[in-house]
Amino acid sequence: MELTRRHALAGAAAIVAAPLLPSIGARAAAPMADKQAPSFYRYKVGDVQVTVVSDGVNTFPLGDSFVLNAKKDDVAAALEKAYMPKDKVSIQFGPLVINTGGKLVVLDTGNGPGAFASSKGNVGQFATNMVAAGFDPKAIDMVVISHFHGDHVNGLLTADGTPAFPNAEVLVPSVEWKFWMDDGEMSKASGDRMKGLFVNNRKIFEVALKKKVTPYEWGKEVAPGLLAAETAGHTPGHTSYVLSSGSGKVFIQSDLTNVPYLFAANPGWHAFFDQDADMAEKARRKTLDMVVADKLQLQGFHFPFPGLGNVEKDGNGYRVIPAPWNPVI
Amino acid sequence: MELTRRHALAGAAAIVAAPLLPSIGARAAAPMADKQAPSFYRYKVGDVQVTVVSDGVNTFPLGDSFVLNAKKDDVAAALEKAYMPKDKVSIQFGPLVINTGGKLVVLDTGNGPGAFASSKGNVGQFATNMVAAGFDPKAIDMVVISHFHGDHVNGLLTADGTPAFPNAEVLVPSVEWKFWMDDGEMSKASGDRMKGLFVNNRKIFEVALKKKVTPYEWGKEVAPGLLAAETAGHTPGHTSYVLSSGSGKVFIQSDLTNVPYLFAANPGWHAFFDQDADMAEKARRKTLDMVVADKLQLQGFHFPFPGLGNVEKDGNGYRVIPAPWNPVI
Repeated sequence: MELTRRHALAGAAAIVAAPLLPSIGARAAAPMADKQAPSFYRYKVGDVQVTVVSDGVNTFPLGDSFVLNAKKDDVAAALEKAYMPKDKVSIQFGPLVINTGGKLVVLDTGNGPGAFASSKGNVGQFATNMVAAGFDPKAIDMVVISHFHGDHVNGLLTADGTPAFPNAEVLVPSVEWKFWMDDGEMSKASGDRMKGLFVNNRKIFEVALKKKVTPYEWGKEVAPGLLAAETAGHTPGHTSYVLSSGSGKVFIQSDLTNVPYLFAANPGWHAFFDQDADMAEKARRKTLDMVVADKLQLQGFHFPFPGLGNVEKDGNGYRVIPAPWNPVI
Repeated sequence: MELTRRHALAGAAAIVAAPLLPSIGARAAAPMADKQAPSFYRYKVGDVQVTVVSDGVNTFPLGDSFVLNAKKDDVAAALEKAYMPKDKVSIQFGPLVINTGGKLVVLDTGNGPGAFASSKGNVGQFATNMVAAGFDPKAIDMVVISHFHGDHVNGLLTADGTPAFPNAEVLVPSVEWKFWMDDGEMSKASGDRMKGLFVNNRKIFEVALKKKVTPYEWGKEVAPGLLAAETAGHTPGHTSYVLSSGSGKVFIQSDLTNVPYLFAANPGWHAFFDQDADMAEKARRKTLDMVVADKLQLQGFHFPFPGLGNVEKDGNGYRVIPAPWNPVI
């Protein structure tokens, strides 16, 4: 094996001159594909069918404040340990379409059409990938929102600001709803990010949706087989879910951990996005311990697509083992 | 969190009676999708574009002789440790389409149309997934074969026995070619499986392709940037590859290990399919040690789709860390 040999592709001349490469007719070289496969993936939970529909990926340089309580060098080392580039972070977004047999349910909606345009298609893919997966937005019965960050709620609207799922009931965590609609909380918001979140949520829910939402409670079924579970901290009303059907069960963790190779591996690390980082860490540890003990499958919104896996203890943290892709359903 | 609660889906009556589930108009329930996403995935290696095109998955009950030198209970335990059902094995098949910029190269061809029909579409998906990925079989310039097992060569032919890639040069490892075309070796073949392999290979290469193949040597470039590497044992001419372009490099391991959670985790285990199991084990250990030391990415034909990952030492064996899916290219 000549494994150290490098192979320069120095253009057509070199290719023609290479051994074993006869010229075959006069066909032009095939063009490179310019698009990834439409990134959706189906799996069953009992009689329920889940389709993970990627909203894309956001890649940004690793900064000093991405992890609030860890040194940049330690974060870079964790990225390198996970075979990632150590100078940048890539965060994916994985909304779900759940067919319960009776209802077609969208769970979180991605970054929306504005982000699709500004990112040149890197994020905001949910709308197109959903159609590629065979779902008509008009056929969606329910949209369930886990929490009120832009990458979860902005896809509620189309580019012209009208409801993206015109026939769907929109279900929101009641604690989350109260917080973001509370004028006192809005007046107390400090920093551009928190102020911006209030503005964005008011624009979506008050102006565009005219407050036509159904608040839901933790510990109750939101949709058939979909139980809302309290995992607050990331936001005041941040919600996870247990999806059950027959003997099938998956824990849908929303943003309990962000990318697993940083925040499951280091559950004590506080991501920039966590509103109450201490509460978020407590929820993360408690919930992941439960998921490990019960050997539940876990679906993560920010996990690499398709985001389904199992969790095990690994040193002081956790390791997520991706479930194997199934080429059939 | 009511995590122990079970949610029976007892039909439409229960759904209508459930809380928070208002009846929305008279729309019929959405049908379940009957097909997985077409399973292809693109990534770049320098200027080269690789598309992994799934040929599907074969699932069979775990028998006593799947691993020749391990107890069935130990194999079942390894499956369970990997969060797989412990009473069956699922093996995937991942041919590649490589666009070098000058040549369109198919690397291994899957189980073929006969298997597609007999498995009801579980395997033999390469032909349809390749078209879904935008490739015209007539546009393929070269087909490179790693070794002469049916799941690698049967896709060379269409259902009517004609060449599936009519304009392609077919490149085969010269050692493999000599072995399977040698009448003395054929006469010495013992057991139905080995005899059947000879019959199948003669049918494909002698009858259908009329021996129009180009044998290639280890240590040489087979296609632009694709270096053939000797990893014999699984078959006498079993070949792996180093695909290089610019600073990009991937080790394409063919069948050096079968499913990684069994045979990378336990490199001393001898799969039923290995013709010279001791030689295969030596090649496996030596090559994986090299892949770990050089931190190469690894592409595995039988790894869960899309089969790209990194390898690290784990106890007495190796662990494959799947590369994160990239929703853009």
